Amino acid sequence: MSWTITANLVPGLARGAAVLGTGGGGDPYIGALLAAQAIQQHGDVTVVSVAEVPDDALVLTVAMMGAPTVMVEKLPSLDEVIAPVHALGAFLGRAVTHIACAEVGGVNSTIPIAAAAALRLPLIDGDGMGRAFPELQMVLPTLYGIDASPLAFSDEKGNVGVLNTVDNAWTERIARVACVEMGCSVMISGFPMSGLQARESLVADSLSLSREIGDGITAAREAKTDPVERTVRLLGGRELFAGKVTDVQRATTTGFARGRARIEGAAGTLELSFQNEHLIAELDGRTLVTTPDLIIVLEHDSGEPITTEGLRYGQRVRVIAAPSDERWHSSAALAMVGPGYFGYDTPSHRFDGRVEHLTDDRGGAAA
Amino acid sequence: MSWTITANLVPGLARGAAVLGTGGGGDPYIGALLAAQAIQQHGDVTVVSVAEVPDDALVLTVAMMGAPTVMVEKLPSLDEVIAPVHALGAFLGRAVTHIACAEVGGVNSTIPIAAAAALRLPLIDGDGMGRAFPELQMVLPTLYGIDASPLAFSDEKGNVGVLNTVDNAWTERIARVACVEMGCSVMISGFPMSGLQARESLVADSLSLSREIGDGITAAREAKTDPVERTVRLLGGRELFAGKVTDVQRATTTGFARGRARIEGAAGTLELSFQNEHLIAELDGRTLVTTPDLIIVLEHDSGEPITTEGLRYGQRVRVIAAPSDERWHSSAALAMVGPGYFGYDTPSHRFDGRVEHLTDDRGGAAA
Repeated sequence: MSWTITANLVPGLARGAAVLGTGGGGDPYIGALLAAQAIQQHGDVTVVSVAEVPDDALVLTVAMMGAPTVMVEKLPSLDEVIAPVHALGAFLGRAVTHIACAEVGGVNSTIPIAAAAALRLPLIDGDGMGRAFPELQMVLPTLYGIDASPLAFSDEKGNVGVLNTVDNAWTERIARVACVEMGCSVMISGFPMSGLQARESLVADSLSLSREIGDGITAAREAKTDPVERTVRLLGGRELFAGKVTDVQRATTTGFARGRARIEGAAGTLELSFQNEHLIAELDGRTLVTTPDLIIVLEHDSGEPITTEGLRYGQRVRVIAAPSDERWHSSAALAMVGPGYFGYDTPSHRFDGRVEHLTDDRGGAAA
Repeated sequence: MSWTITANLVPGLARGAAVLGTGGGGDPYIGALLAAQAIQQHGDVTVVSVAEVPDDALVLTVAMMGAPTVMVEKLPSLDEVIAPVHALGAFLGRAVTHIACAEVGGVNSTIPIAAAAALRLPLIDGDGMGRAFPELQMVLPTLYGIDASPLAFSDEKGNVGVLNTVDNAWTERIARVACVEMGCSVMISGFPMSGLQARESLVADSLSLSREIGDGITAAREAKTDPVERTVRLLGGRELFAGKVTDVQRATTTGFARGRARIEGAAGTLELSFQNEHLIAELDGRTLVTTPDLIIVLEHDSGEPITTEGLRYGQRVRVIAAPSDERWHSSAALAMVGPGYFGYDTPSHRFDGRVEHLTDDRGGAAA
């Protein structure tokens, strides 16, 4: 079923996408500004469900690649956003028919809205991850043998490149060094897919879910009910912890924002490890949840999502966990996005919803 | 006037090109093997003079980019050599008509022969520098406003990229980091030019000159005359120094082979500074010659060129200087290839042929 993104729907959608983005994908409000501006200039965006994409479609993903710490200071222009789509369409010698999100996450759910508006193309209600991950090959299409390349990238200066690589890991490696050299943030378009491939490999309905989560946070606040509980319910997840951020270590290295955050609460000390996105949650040294399952940090009272680069000393937060798309738990998927890939010794610790509920609504001691 | 490169002409041409390459461009014998093999497989290569290239030609340069220290261990396949030409032709949507050398130097005079043979295209008797330089924007076409990009690159694994940048310095920056990530050595094709542009900007007859120098070294040896004197005469240069290599410092950093060599002789101590190519020659602290003029190291008796990565302790060598193409001495050119660009304080010290002749034929003390 198709629906329409008007400018007034963008803030809610961006907020919900930032929840699913598990801390990554950059500041959602930055991307939302760009999407709203594009819609005002070029008209509303038609969203089509994954099931509606015709077999012979040419679907391209559009995303911002780089360190979120840099992205927030370097909002791309609409010209920069559409440059890689044009370059890739020319390289392929075919007309692009649909835009898709590579991930759900702050900037990377809203930049494709801007691209779809400016290009007057439909946007697919789905994405390649059902969450956000830091490297470009980390999408379910990779597991279906879909190539990231040909992939195009562009920067704000007007530089454009097209890569055609032997595998998705090489696309990531070459695009990443180019991205770092070009200022730690570029626009990319890639993963050319037929409609058949898109239907098979994308996570369906993630824009609808983002919108539902985002609007739900606002609605709960207005109704004076708990916005976090509502989000947890929509995700089929569980609240893990509530507390105060007491330490954040963060470094932007090799194009990523890597770091750790410590949160202290009545139930103990929660440590989060992140690389753009939250990857591991440990309570007093005990692993609770690991990538690929979702670890989400929300503002304690408002339920607003907090990105990894937005984490600050003294924030009162609640941390929730939710299961990832089932396909992320295959052994091939875990080799690509499990804790080991990111350099952690921690074994993959699947979230099964049975993690104890460690906090009550008031952030007090838990059962 | 056109002529033909047969497999038996390749060694002489490669030797002469290595002389003009001022120590850079990689081991000439490696490239010569590839060129001879390509000619045997695909036929002889027609060489056309710069004056003969028609206005509406589409000329592309073909070169190997990277650290010569790595190139010598990573001989490209013919598939890798022609991949960027095919990618760029497809990107431009036009048939490539001529291949040109970006520089004269070991590998980079012979790789284009291999490309021309495999693609069955004519090769232009000329090059973009009249010598070798370490960065890709350092060609006379840059001074004529000709863009390095669109530029394509490829590696031995099968990865290919095409860049379209805002200026030639950005082509260099992005291609260089990709090159380093791809193993410090890639094949590139770029500087798309019309025949008009090629005629205006290239250094004419450099393949003919390479052949004359290279064959002259062999002929002089056979005639028991001094091969170095003959080379000096062909270049309009001067012998600077003779002595023994007593120290070589070399590091492969950020994709270049950088270093210094010390040569001791009766006339004092000569210090050479290089970055792939020899850039500065100083005698007992006094600057004799600087980039863009040519500083060439030859084996003392045989007159064989020695590349910067081939310099070894104990070698007996003779160092000669020769004037570069006049156009390299404009202020715009010096900003691009003068000593200051490479990080040396030394002011540009133009070789005018009046540098004292510091050695006699036996390497003894000089006048």
